[in-house]
Amino acid sequence: MRCDAGDVGLCPLDVLPCKATVVVDSSHFTRKLIDASGMFALQLPTVGILKETLALGSVSKNDVPEKIEKSGAELFYMDGFEIPLVKGCAGWMIFKVVSEPHNEKAYDLIIGECVGAWADSRVFENGHWKFEEAPSDLRTLHYVAGGHFYAIGDVLRVPVEA
Amino acid sequence: MRCDAGDVGLCPLDVLPCKATVVVDSSHFTRKLIDASGMFALQLPTVGILKETLALGSVSKNDVPEKIEKSGAELFYMDGFEIPLVKGCAGWMIFKVVSEPHNEKAYDLIIGECVGAWADSRVFENGHWKFEEAPSDLRTLHYVAGGHFYAIGDVLRVPVEA
Repeated sequence: MRCDAGDVGLCPLDVLPCKATVVVDSSHFTRKLIDASGMFALQLPTVGILKETLALGSVSKNDVPEKIEKSGAELFYMDGFEIPLVKGCAGWMIFKVVSEPHNEKAYDLIIGECVGAWADSRVFENGHWKFEEAPSDLRTLHYVAGGHFYAIGDVLRVPVEA
Repeated sequence: MRCDAGDVGLCPLDVLPCKATVVVDSSHFTRKLIDASGMFALQLPTVGILKETLALGSVSKNDVPEKIEKSGAELFYMDGFEIPLVKGCAGWMIFKVVSEPHNEKAYDLIIGECVGAWADSRVFENGHWKFEEAPSDLRTLHYVAGGHFYAIGDVLRVPVEA
């Protein structure tokens, strides 16, 4: 499967069935989009889009209507889905909301069932990440606070008994 | 606060109120412990306990009653809590289950409210991780599959506008 995610090959992933939960406060702009569409996406941002990721995560579209344009992030769409995704991530998963009104109201907790997943084949192959073989700007980001991130680091392997 | 976590200083963390969700299949040994005690812990394993972490995560106490002893992991307890924690982690959080029988039955999804949190002060200070200043065996682990891990890697900082 190919799409307009830039000059990268995307491999569709066999992760179904798979669920995930997200917590999105009811005041957030994104929450209205999730409630209206019944869909959300989880994406794995990378070193190559560090500044764009921070901008997307630290500004609300409630306050800055042109948030996306100002962030520098480039969006794309996968065939058959209307939810925008961010170019430069290492992986993308699209979820359909499993309606659970009590969770959504009491905890802002939303359960999703995965309906599509893709990874950049330069960093993910045969069910495994291969960050050590890929360009360093494809390493995933792990956020702390205040503009402070860590990239994923060295590979470690432990022999597993058959 | 000090405890018997080895020769490390533990800093209690001001993370309250804070909730987290875990999914623990009803067949797992751990699930019975959570259901009986109404408590669970989330811990951040490190490079220094790589083999112990894999052993704890890949063997069930349903099959191997002496799982803990065989794993090589050393346990300790925080004052006032009866839940065992693993020495050598970078951080530990203890949660009290928020009873939601529908979630637990339908999704094996358990919501917890944090009642205590601590970090190894060699790697966490003033609300921030400082892996780059600490011994490399304190770097946190990120698991893929089949004995394949990544350690947390390089620090990255983006200037944040005031």
